[in-house]
Amino acid sequence: MVPIQLNSRQTKIIDIVKEHEPITSEQIASILGVTRATLRPDLAILTMSGILDARPKVGYFYSGVDENNLISKKINSKNVGDIMSLPILVTEDTTVYDTIVTMFLENVGSIFVTNKGYLSGVVSRKDLLKNAIGGSEISKIPVGITMTRMPNIVVTYPNESVVEAARKIIDHEVDSLPVTELEIIDGKEHYKVVGRISKTNITRLFLEFSGS
Amino acid sequence: MVPIQLNSRQTKIIDIVKEHEPITSEQIASILGVTRATLRPDLAILTMSGILDARPKVGYFYSGVDENNLISKKINSKNVGDIMSLPILVTEDTTVYDTIVTMFLENVGSIFVTNKGYLSGVVSRKDLLKNAIGGSEISKIPVGITMTRMPNIVVTYPNESVVEAARKIIDHEVDSLPVTELEIIDGKEHYKVVGRISKTNITRLFLEFSGS
Repeated sequence: MVPIQLNSRQTKIIDIVKEHEPITSEQIASILGVTRATLRPDLAILTMSGILDARPKVGYFYSGVDENNLISKKINSKNVGDIMSLPILVTEDTTVYDTIVTMFLENVGSIFVTNKGYLSGVVSRKDLLKNAIGGSEISKIPVGITMTRMPNIVVTYPNESVVEAARKIIDHEVDSLPVTELEIIDGKEHYKVVGRISKTNITRLFLEFSGS
Repeated sequence: MVPIQLNSRQTKIIDIVKEHEPITSEQIASILGVTRATLRPDLAILTMSGILDARPKVGYFYSGVDENNLISKKINSKNVGDIMSLPILVTEDTTVYDTIVTMFLENVGSIFVTNKGYLSGVVSRKDLLKNAIGGSEISKIPVGITMTRMPNIVVTYPNESVVEAARKIIDHEVDSLPVTELEIIDGKEHYKVVGRISKTNITRLFLEFSGS
């Protein structure tokens, strides 16, 4: 796909078709005061680009495609699995203090908590800060009693689009999502954590699309 | 600008020009085994789109423009001022505890600190968490002694591009930047805080471009 800068006659043709669709090339030519032969290359470009639809014996229609569709298509083609980071995991019996230390060492905003190898909870910097100023004995209490627990956790999947994941991050006001694979064991859902996608990953992808 | 799906002959022409530039339309026609007249609409589309450059009496050149440039151009057109949020400010004598409370009430990841109305520091959730577990008396010490202080703060401006701001956020590993206006008073630089731009703003903009 390549971008083409439309000339002013082509822009006028789009406006005419929008208003009068369906409209024949004879009618467009008569409105513009030019011959059909003059319009031929313009109509070729407008139909090749998908902006106009031509139906034999009916005329031209406006299809509604424009540059924003192209950008949207490109952005929607990226999946979570293409840009995710490694997850940082602790087990439920890890103390809140040790979880904070892990957060500093790994420099992440969220830590995922597992039980028997499957996702059981999430703690954020905000949760840990709340604990730290709450007067509780953070070097004794396990992270399992303070974390946000399944099923109240929003997850994503490697083959979900980055756009879907970004939408979940914004709607649920979280900094990151665990990237998971669903496993059904004895009829129960278990989520294996295979990655992490955060606003940082999305900001990096934004920079990549910007070409900088 | 509109996207056009190139046909296979147009793609071949691009490859030929890339390899042999500068090359005349006669030479391209002879390589492809077609007449110059056949090529005319193809060359028109390729030069209108900016993919090929035509120089009289020299021939065609490849200019390197493709769909990614279009996306890049669109993304680069947004400025910080278009998407920034309100800044959350405290003064230097605010206690660390009260700063943490403000952070929870306003639900932000960073607080900007001012002195006589101008930016003097920044504190993040991470800084405050460090203080909270460090054993210091957070209800007594002022935020001014624990914050990151000017000039060690990365700032942005309303008329800077979002791409530039995103680059600073990623390179300096921060969650947000103060949006400032520079004032020179008695020959010294002072920064008035007029906004805040975070990875959340950038993630929202990403969603906007995605069309979702």
